[in-house]
Amino acid sequence: MSNQNRQVGKNAYGKRNSKKRYVTYRKSPNKKTLQPPKAMESVRIAFLGGMNEIGKNMTLYEYGDDMFIVDCGLAFPDADLPGVDLVIPDFTFVEENAKKIKGIIVTHGHEDHIGGIAYLLKKVNIPIYATKLTIGLIKGKLEEHGLLESAKLVEIKARDNITLGSFNIEMIHVNHSIPDAVGLAIRCPAGVIIQTGDFKIDTTPVDGDIIDLTRFAEFGKRGVLAMLSDSTNAERPGYSASEKTVGDSFELLFRKAKNKRIVVATFASNIHRVQQIIDVAASRKRKVAVVGRSLENLVKVGSELGYLNVPEGILIDISMIRSYSDEQLVIITTGSQGEPMSALTKMAYGDHRKVCLTPNDYVIISATPIPGNEKMVGNVVNELMKRGVEVIYEKMYDVHASGHACQEELKLMLGIIKPKYFIPVHGEQKHLQKHAMLAEAVGIDRDNIYIGNIGEKIEINENGIKKKGSITAGEVYVDGIGVGDVGNVVLNDRKKLSKDGLIIVVATIDSSSGYVASGPDIVSRGFVYVRENEELMNSARELATKIIDDSYDNNYRDWNSTKTRLRDEISRLMYEKTKRNPMILPIFMEI
Amino acid sequence: MSNQNRQVGKNAYGKRNSKKRYVTYRKSPNKKTLQPPKAMESVRIAFLGGMNEIGKNMTLYEYGDDMFIVDCGLAFPDADLPGVDLVIPDFTFVEENAKKIKGIIVTHGHEDHIGGIAYLLKKVNIPIYATKLTIGLIKGKLEEHGLLESAKLVEIKARDNITLGSFNIEMIHVNHSIPDAVGLAIRCPAGVIIQTGDFKIDTTPVDGDIIDLTRFAEFGKRGVLAMLSDSTNAERPGYSASEKTVGDSFELLFRKAKNKRIVVATFASNIHRVQQIIDVAASRKRKVAVVGRSLENLVKVGSELGYLNVPEGILIDISMIRSYSDEQLVIITTGSQGEPMSALTKMAYGDHRKVCLTPNDYVIISATPIPGNEKMVGNVVNELMKRGVEVIYEKMYDVHASGHACQEELKLMLGIIKPKYFIPVHGEQKHLQKHAMLAEAVGIDRDNIYIGNIGEKIEINENGIKKKGSITAGEVYVDGIGVGDVGNVVLNDRKKLSKDGLIIVVATIDSSSGYVASGPDIVSRGFVYVRENEELMNSARELATKIIDDSYDNNYRDWNSTKTRLRDEISRLMYEKTKRNPMILPIFMEI
Repeated sequence: MSNQNRQVGKNAYGKRNSKKRYVTYRKSPNKKTLQPPKAMESVRIAFLGGMNEIGKNMTLYEYGDDMFIVDCGLAFPDADLPGVDLVIPDFTFVEENAKKIKGIIVTHGHEDHIGGIAYLLKKVNIPIYATKLTIGLIKGKLEEHGLLESAKLVEIKARDNITLGSFNIEMIHVNHSIPDAVGLAIRCPAGVIIQTGDFKIDTTPVDGDIIDLTRFAEFGKRGVLAMLSDSTNAERPGYSASEKTVGDSFELLFRKAKNKRIVVATFASNIHRVQQIIDVAASRKRKVAVVGRSLENLVKVGSELGYLNVPEGILIDISMIRSYSDEQLVIITTGSQGEPMSALTKMAYGDHRKVCLTPNDYVIISATPIPGNEKMVGNVVNELMKRGVEVIYEKMYDVHASGHACQEELKLMLGIIKPKYFIPVHGEQKHLQKHAMLAEAVGIDRDNIYIGNIGEKIEINENGIKKKGSITAGEVYVDGIGVGDVGNVVLNDRKKLSKDGLIIVVATIDSSSGYVASGPDIVSRGFVYVRENEELMNSARELATKIIDDSYDNNYRDWNSTKTRLRDEISRLMYEKTKRNPMILPIFMEI
Repeated sequence: MSNQNRQVGKNAYGKRNSKKRYVTYRKSPNKKTLQPPKAMESVRIAFLGGMNEIGKNMTLYEYGDDMFIVDCGLAFPDADLPGVDLVIPDFTFVEENAKKIKGIIVTHGHEDHIGGIAYLLKKVNIPIYATKLTIGLIKGKLEEHGLLESAKLVEIKARDNITLGSFNIEMIHVNHSIPDAVGLAIRCPAGVIIQTGDFKIDTTPVDGDIIDLTRFAEFGKRGVLAMLSDSTNAERPGYSASEKTVGDSFELLFRKAKNKRIVVATFASNIHRVQQIIDVAASRKRKVAVVGRSLENLVKVGSELGYLNVPEGILIDISMIRSYSDEQLVIITTGSQGEPMSALTKMAYGDHRKVCLTPNDYVIISATPIPGNEKMVGNVVNELMKRGVEVIYEKMYDVHASGHACQEELKLMLGIIKPKYFIPVHGEQKHLQKHAMLAEAVGIDRDNIYIGNIGEKIEINENGIKKKGSITAGEVYVDGIGVGDVGNVVLNDRKKLSKDGLIIVVATIDSSSGYVASGPDIVSRGFVYVRENEELMNSARELATKIIDDSYDNNYRDWNSTKTRLRDEISRLMYEKTKRNPMILPIFMEI
């Protein structure tokens, strides 16, 4: 535990008085008296991200004048956001309330929980509380942004608790696809709120450290006002598989690979997966080389902080693989989602500088495609197979275990915690609604379940849960080094340009006479192959000339209306001749 | 059976002499004598589409100077082809060999088998042979293209056979997700080739007409030289579910829907699915309205040709739904793949003119997302749920059955037909390779399995199967009414424009003096929001001015090299300041 901050103490829940303080409200419910409820303050929760979307999770808690944030992630853009690199939450509300915000607690080190932090700190430099590995991964991000010096990082661990104004928050260990993940028990005078964070119940976790159900149960027993729980897998029946089952599959597949070189693609952040690959490789006397920047970083951070146990001499640099025969090697690589610039994709297309795949390679894709990535993953599999590589993918063997609780686990958690109010989080509408149905199934009243939305602020107390208002929230696009300078106008232009290209009509006008001094010329890009469509281009030029001449004849001098006519009429002509809608861009130069 | 063409006869296979003709080659194998094989002609197969891709299936058979085609489909463009509407096969090889081509046989009426026909007929007007429903659907396409008058359509039915030059082809009934689908037994002096077409084995098909395994077995017994079989589901273990199971699910779900209005989204071509919806609706005294152009067309064609049995008075026009209460209605709609312009998507987003969904609607998405469409389907489900609609989707119930054979069915077909050579078709590399593995599993020699590729021509005879050469084949893009005028240059421009937009540098030059008469001006689209980035635009303008001045000072007059400098240096400046790569487009006007 860090000593940097005295607010971090030992399990404050053990103190009788603090316990009582948050529980009394349930012990003597107001409804017993017929008087109106005591004017007690409610706790408020603002959803800055992660509701009705997968990614950029960010929640803000407020009691009185005190606020704190849980997580600050990023989302990856879909095809609807051409050219956008990352999506981060809108921080307007945070900036407006900077003085009230006591800190940010980060539940674990995945991008959708830490990826926005560097951008947040550029706006408000609030202290960050997280466990050791999570801090290690955040540090890497902050370093890239030159923020490491100024950031206030506080290391905490499970069962620690911290006080942030009126809030006291206890960290509770959970299982997830990255070590050192925590859920939160958030205490304030309005009651106790449990935020599970991303979690699963793994009874045989790789590090032996099962989710702290006991602690969750203790809170449940004492009474929990509200619970916010991970909805990612709310559509999946049953239980999630233990990460250990993946290790068993590796044992089997490494045997099946015989003398071939083995290449395993996995998520860069899954330390336990990497640990299992290293363990099986070691038992079969194979060396391990790691490819892909994010994986190399993970192995470095994970080893330094003691989360990855690498036997002496087993790791070799990728440039050394030529010194070993195929049967002596395992390569761990990024690219399990078929990402275009990833190491595995480059290998599949024969573009990787250091790894050249042959029919003597045995590739295991140790991941399930995230919705939207199925086609990219399929393409990578196809290309690998064209090279004669044997590929283990999708559901052929249990080579992947989800890090998120499935329906039975979600119900179990709901049953243990028995919250008065339930708020499914981290999911699209279909996940949130399925999770709500699970909560109803375990006996939570439908009226006590709140399906929220990004940009909502809700208010909770013993008497109810309700929407309190709206806050500024949404998506901010990061494109290159620009943050927020790409908006809907720019994106709509990009989409229109990508669909049918553009036609530029350019003319030089003698401003004294109003005559056309040069042009109009027609330039196009992304519309048709011009050399084969001269006639079409000529007809556009003729029409443009006619429109400009007209406006001169009519003594318009109103170049804006001429531009509008050009746009409308050339658009119409092009649609008529090609059934396409290129962007028409008239440019007039004056001399 | 049609009488339009005398080549169509009754089951020619029944004639003893014709049978013998194709089988003798196996009965007395040449290897028994030590002499080299008799100089007999091989049959050749050219792959014009459907190999290493899903879609635009097209195969060409050649014996001596005779050729014929099987199927001519289209493919739908993926995100890599912005603005492209359809992809059709390259017909160059067909045009070059127009005189040899005796006809085209179409196995069934799906877009990936008929969608290219109208474009093909514009190049070569060859006779088309297909079953009644398939002809009906082709007619619709030809009418749109104004080709119905000139087209030569010949209606055939299962167990018919037709002679096309040296080939005699028998149609064999198969089950698929559209009625009237056939596989082919292709006879020529080199031997018998079975092309299954898209198929599944449905022992309880909706129309009661099980795949003609007997006929396939008869050919198998007599000896089959080669087999081309559908690989779409070669990755899926087990058997495909019977279409009847979907009907059972509808029974259950229609009861669960209680008094709600029911909306079922399904593939427009699945007549059996539509039949089952109508049947269950009728049994529950609900009226049926159909929404979506392709579905309306299917119901029209299907009813006219007798493939759809619609009880009197059950079908109502969509504009009449207001005259009925919710519990009296079933709406069948397109959009089961979440297609952006489809009826269901419009309903989900509240944009449909005639159907407004409320919490009293019960939506069943009776389809599985095609790889690549998962996210779109998910978005539609989310939007429906936000409207309070109850949605049955994905694997919640058996509301979809695939039309393609799974592994056990594929093996069964291989086992019945026992071809000497096997060529998996209709699939990406992973499907073709999996299908090849299944063939090996049932005892076909690895050397006798050929994994082909689009653009290959192969040669088959009793002595072997081998690549004979390459032919022109590939993708032709249809964009609007343009066929083939969008190529890589245009597509690359579109992709570049969509990523980071463009910057236009425009200047008017006095050609006598070489001076800049006006500009340079900077115009951008899809790059940054200009009003908030004036400084950046100014720095681009300054740099452009400097470069143009330089070239004037150096007395360049070589505007091409000035343009190159503008592109390079402004590109560099923009990347430095924004880490983006917009297209830079210099335009000089001369006066």
